[in-house]
Amino acid sequence: MLQHIKRMKKIIIASTSTLHGGTYLEYLTETLKEHFKNCSTLLFIPYARPGGITHDEYTQKAAEFFGKLGIEVKGIHEFENPVAAVQNAEAIFTGGGNTFLLVTQLYQNKVMEAVKTAVENGTPYLGTSAGSNICGLTMETTNDMPIIYPPSFDTLALVPFNINPHYLDPVAGSTHMGETRETRINEFHHFNPQPVLGLREGSWLEVKGNTTTLRGDLDARLFRQNTPPEEIATGTDLSWLK
Amino acid sequence: MLQHIKRMKKIIIASTSTLHGGTYLEYLTETLKEHFKNCSTLLFIPYARPGGITHDEYTQKAAEFFGKLGIEVKGIHEFENPVAAVQNAEAIFTGGGNTFLLVTQLYQNKVMEAVKTAVENGTPYLGTSAGSNICGLTMETTNDMPIIYPPSFDTLALVPFNINPHYLDPVAGSTHMGETRETRINEFHHFNPQPVLGLREGSWLEVKGNTTTLRGDLDARLFRQNTPPEEIATGTDLSWLK
Repeated sequence: MLQHIKRMKKIIIASTSTLHGGTYLEYLTETLKEHFKNCSTLLFIPYARPGGITHDEYTQKAAEFFGKLGIEVKGIHEFENPVAAVQNAEAIFTGGGNTFLLVTQLYQNKVMEAVKTAVENGTPYLGTSAGSNICGLTMETTNDMPIIYPPSFDTLALVPFNINPHYLDPVAGSTHMGETRETRINEFHHFNPQPVLGLREGSWLEVKGNTTTLRGDLDARLFRQNTPPEEIATGTDLSWLK
Repeated sequence: MLQHIKRMKKIIIASTSTLHGGTYLEYLTETLKEHFKNCSTLLFIPYARPGGITHDEYTQKAAEFFGKLGIEVKGIHEFENPVAAVQNAEAIFTGGGNTFLLVTQLYQNKVMEAVKTAVENGTPYLGTSAGSNICGLTMETTNDMPIIYPPSFDTLALVPFNINPHYLDPVAGSTHMGETRETRINEFHHFNPQPVLGLREGSWLEVKGNTTTLRGDLDARLFRQNTPPEEIATGTDLSWLK
């Protein structure tokens, strides 16, 4: 029975790491205590960070938060064999940054498949922003700038749809002629059939086994091909969505 | 002498096709009269448009504007041999939409190289938005969503730097935690050496032979690796920039 519980998929897919006015991961503290309650160590994947801070510094930021939860953090870049690091991890957290860079490095270091297998076999996973984007079927609904060319746009497919983190509603009265987020996602649907869930900052998906639930204070916006966008209330069971 | 004039590079790289409150290309009317003054026909490349309107309808939109200038427009999709269409074009205009889609289709239809050669040999070119993005070395500073996977991010390299169209200044007091445009371009510079010119809506670059000049009412924002961003006054000769 314990084995069964341990093997259940456990995933948090968060729109953002940080709420305006809050500290890093602060708003998720209670959720993460529960999510990682059986873990004393966590593997952090800092690949998405395009500079400004080093992988060590980024890992230290995660370590400071998880230290308060009694969880020791190591960065994947500290291991000689990153695939083995993933396979042996008690828990995995992929931080935000640039999704093109993250996906490029996951492929280059050959850990994309290893992360997928580990999480599907029950290693608890947390993603924020770019780390959440990769939980979808593809990274094709990222908001990030394509600063590097990844070998593929395919990602972890931990949920059978795509994620749009940091979802932004159109700005009322804007005179800017660039596309709104909603327009961009509609354009995605001219070429791709899968639903896209727009997660506003402060929202997250909780995957437990076969159940996927929207969490946080806000509603999410669901885009499906040939269907008007819908508002999804927090607490909604989204296990049917594909 | 006439031959020499005809062969001079003539390129307009516009941030946007349409200003808020204006009609399609309206703000560029006088500029385009001069730019295309020796042309009676123009080849329109509608590839960037991800749906909503067909290639025919998009081409019709361009035709309506250029009709007023006495220029007949045909869409590249109307030709059996798109490479020959480019080679035979008196003038070329690539409209906006999604840059990932545009670049994918330029490669799929094998016209990327043909457009580069034609424009470098003096075929007058107009780009707006995505059609301007491709004038840079790479499309890696587009704002668009990666709705389709192009075979490469390399583009026309008609100017020796990258373009960021629809450049947006940070919104003062924003509580949104997504990256600002400036942050994204700085991240680009962690991996790429070339300068990036942020063209605000209403700005364009005019390339005549070896001279590149910033036009329009607004200043542009120039980002160079390891250098603080600079404001560039309209009218500035940017021929030195690479």
